[in-house]
Amino acid sequence: MSITGKQLINGEWVQGKGGEYQGVNPATGQKIEPTLTFADGEQVKAAAAAAKAAVHAFGATSLKERGAFLERCSDEIMALGDELLERLMAETGYPRARVEGERGRTCGQLKLFASTIQNGEYLDARIDLAMPDRQPLPRADIRFYKQPIGPVVVFGASNFPMAFSVAGGDTASALAAGCPVIVKGHNSHPGSGELVAQALAKAVKACNLPAGVFSFVTGPGKDVGAALVTAPEVKAVGFTGSLGGGMALFNLANQRPEPIPVFAEMGSVNPVVVLPEALKANAAGIAEGFVGSLTMGVGQFCVNPGLVLGIKGSELDAFIETASAKLGEVPAGVMLNEGIANTYGKGAEHLAGQKGVTVAAKGKAAEGTGFCGQAQILTVNGADFIANEHLQEEVFGPSSVVIQCADASELAQAVGCLKGQLTGTLQATSEELAHYPELLAMLQEKVGRVVFNNYPTGVEVCHAMMHGGPFPAATDARFTSVGTKAIDRFVRPICFQNYPHDLLPEPLKNGNAWGISRWVNGERTSGAIGG
Amino acid sequence: MSITGKQLINGEWVQGKGGEYQGVNPATGQKIEPTLTFADGEQVKAAAAAAKAAVHAFGATSLKERGAFLERCSDEIMALGDELLERLMAETGYPRARVEGERGRTCGQLKLFASTIQNGEYLDARIDLAMPDRQPLPRADIRFYKQPIGPVVVFGASNFPMAFSVAGGDTASALAAGCPVIVKGHNSHPGSGELVAQALAKAVKACNLPAGVFSFVTGPGKDVGAALVTAPEVKAVGFTGSLGGGMALFNLANQRPEPIPVFAEMGSVNPVVVLPEALKANAAGIAEGFVGSLTMGVGQFCVNPGLVLGIKGSELDAFIETASAKLGEVPAGVMLNEGIANTYGKGAEHLAGQKGVTVAAKGKAAEGTGFCGQAQILTVNGADFIANEHLQEEVFGPSSVVIQCADASELAQAVGCLKGQLTGTLQATSEELAHYPELLAMLQEKVGRVVFNNYPTGVEVCHAMMHGGPFPAATDARFTSVGTKAIDRFVRPICFQNYPHDLLPEPLKNGNAWGISRWVNGERTSGAIGG
Repeated sequence: MSITGKQLINGEWVQGKGGEYQGVNPATGQKIEPTLTFADGEQVKAAAAAAKAAVHAFGATSLKERGAFLERCSDEIMALGDELLERLMAETGYPRARVEGERGRTCGQLKLFASTIQNGEYLDARIDLAMPDRQPLPRADIRFYKQPIGPVVVFGASNFPMAFSVAGGDTASALAAGCPVIVKGHNSHPGSGELVAQALAKAVKACNLPAGVFSFVTGPGKDVGAALVTAPEVKAVGFTGSLGGGMALFNLANQRPEPIPVFAEMGSVNPVVVLPEALKANAAGIAEGFVGSLTMGVGQFCVNPGLVLGIKGSELDAFIETASAKLGEVPAGVMLNEGIANTYGKGAEHLAGQKGVTVAAKGKAAEGTGFCGQAQILTVNGADFIANEHLQEEVFGPSSVVIQCADASELAQAVGCLKGQLTGTLQATSEELAHYPELLAMLQEKVGRVVFNNYPTGVEVCHAMMHGGPFPAATDARFTSVGTKAIDRFVRPICFQNYPHDLLPEPLKNGNAWGISRWVNGERTSGAIGG
Repeated sequence: MSITGKQLINGEWVQGKGGEYQGVNPATGQKIEPTLTFADGEQVKAAAAAAKAAVHAFGATSLKERGAFLERCSDEIMALGDELLERLMAETGYPRARVEGERGRTCGQLKLFASTIQNGEYLDARIDLAMPDRQPLPRADIRFYKQPIGPVVVFGASNFPMAFSVAGGDTASALAAGCPVIVKGHNSHPGSGELVAQALAKAVKACNLPAGVFSFVTGPGKDVGAALVTAPEVKAVGFTGSLGGGMALFNLANQRPEPIPVFAEMGSVNPVVVLPEALKANAAGIAEGFVGSLTMGVGQFCVNPGLVLGIKGSELDAFIETASAKLGEVPAGVMLNEGIANTYGKGAEHLAGQKGVTVAAKGKAAEGTGFCGQAQILTVNGADFIANEHLQEEVFGPSSVVIQCADASELAQAVGCLKGQLTGTLQATSEELAHYPELLAMLQEKVGRVVFNNYPTGVEVCHAMMHGGPFPAATDARFTSVGTKAIDRFVRPICFQNYPHDLLPEPLKNGNAWGISRWVNGERTSGAIGG
């Protein structure tokens, strides 16, 4: 394998016609060879047309065939070996353990979808049998299931160059659903993105799938990205990134002649509520865990804890003191690219300059070259927080604000004014939690995931994960972008009334050859009908 | 009971402050007593605040309690007796059998939700148990379910003054999900709307629910409707009506500081594909069934068959001939209101004036008073249809265009250029259907429901119904507005990580006291955990 800088369109690797660029090593600021290309508008159109052409054939594959394809995607990614890991490290500044872990997570996701779809649950098959003798009117046979929504465009995230990128959760769930995918490669890890795209292209060929099942194009968001989202063939968009980026796509998609859903996971400030009894028992331990979560990966996680809410007093003082001491030891880390490091620096400064905000601690300053981010912890009182929306803006990186509320009532008020969040964390004893029913209800209303005595970083890929949340954490709170439920974003229901049995999709035939769990006349069963 | 013309806000019936109006009898054009009021902006705000105040208490009700409430709603509607039926007839021009049938359907829907939610399937409960010894990292206990999305605004439809109105499918499914509802009463059946609202208000009181669980306001869409959709407390909107109305709400909702989902079912032209072998066997029978479906209820159904697509030839000629003869006998019917009758008249004329369009038949002309609609069947050839988007515009009423395609390939092309549809119907023999795989695949891509040798009118309320479809049939093809799956629109997922067991919502506790079907560690089970 080698990095060509080309675009993958309808199974062919072609030179992009939209300009040239190069990857950059954020640890050195140096460009990385070779020169790469961007797609132009015509190439985007060709990719969209190829995806549409693949819809029926890919949608008609069996769960087994699709499972085998996802497994093959994983195998081909592993076969990229060290070339992939080294390019990832060079493009992101991440250490080897991190990129290896992320590769494991990415392949694990592909395999999890491969196995989970076999039970057919996501098809949501429902059969209401005919009742020809019903009075006053007979009931026709009606059968319902969920079919692929159509071509999906995936915008990868900079911070997870594997797990939320070319073959990440969005791509894996869309392919698992039977939707052709066009990935818009992220400019922050273009070479590793292409390598993964090469792996997926090989899997498509090996599994004899239509070439349009997977395409890979690169370019600036405002033209290549916009062209993808407005291509009429495209039926849904997956995105992980900033609020500004997500909303630009959301607005474009809603203004199309045919609006389409955009699943944009746009991050949040992930409030951590620390309650007095828990701090009394273990302020130092909680503070240490918090600083670890805040500074891991130089704070570059959507679920990074950017807000801490507590009640003024010696317990909270102890927490701030330990956290500050710990943070002081944290070296400035290399961030993903120059833009992120600059935005972080400005955002951190902007937060520190807000009314009533005090800098409690800073991490070590940057040394030498590279796009580095210096950690910080700020403090502010509850009233100033409640009065100032800016303090709720996500600053992507290792910065957090501790809100010192006057009392439990002001704490509830502060939680009450929070916007939608991916996560909300409670550091508390079980006993004291029972005294804050209103706080719990409010938190539950505002977040996608409630975390108790853990930290929000570390998003488990499993069946019960909800990674998403009320706006502005995501554009659509009804869906998760991590875990097996992510597939629900890329299917839509259809029903068949009085349809010839032989022409029904396999999951809806009487025999239930796939042995999936279905609802028949309102009862759940894995059996055959009339068998 | 008597009709007061008041608004129901937070459990109180109050005089509207937004002006006065009266209902109109479409059969006579006469106003109906008494004088009614419209709400003003402040009253809308009060209704939204009351709904928000009810969120937690109503969301915390058990499935049994919510089921009992829905049953009570049905009982209170039945208790309205003849007063409701007579007012419905006066306001809509519908005959007694129709309004009785619709009352039955409405109460049936409420009862169906009451019973169906008991199995807890819509909660989609999933539990991934902790794996404290997992390497390299332990897994926390994670539990997922779907909770009510928050206050829902429902815009009723004119054409189903019961089943898609105040206590119709949107309201029933939102209440079943545990969401407070604010209904914007339809100006075309204001008195009967109020009576049903009175019934629901009694049920709320009788079940000791917070008053904000159900409110009822009336007024023009452009101010009262807009104020409802932009109220920050509102988290979702259900709507059935025109494309223009639905899109106005959709755009408003997406431009809010916090965008919210709008489930607008905006109707479609519901193509009926008639294939030669079926016509050869029974052109007259198919034509008769078609005219019955087209003219039933004066064509005032979202699923009214506004397009017929066939292949030129003696079979299609025979179909057109019989259909025309049958249509000629159909008397002009009273439509729901003056606006609908006028819009229908203009739309029917507009269609008839398109290039290449011929009037094949007209129903009987209107006689006497009342807002009547005269049925029509038009014909046009395939090429003119394919070239002219206007022929795809829904004309709400008993008008249909028969597309005479040159051959099977042009038929496929005509189906290929269709926009999204609620339904697509096939009149065919099973044998010939097998020769049109591409046509079937294309139809399946464009519709929410495929109907075989039935007609699209008559939407069954059941578990397997999909009433919705790709845009512009609906704003969100991923959800149905009829049948038990309609509840999915009004819930959103949340997960709990490492949460204290006693504080978990009941459906996620180990004991599974409600006995619902859950996914535990990736396996479906109705059992308890560790029990």
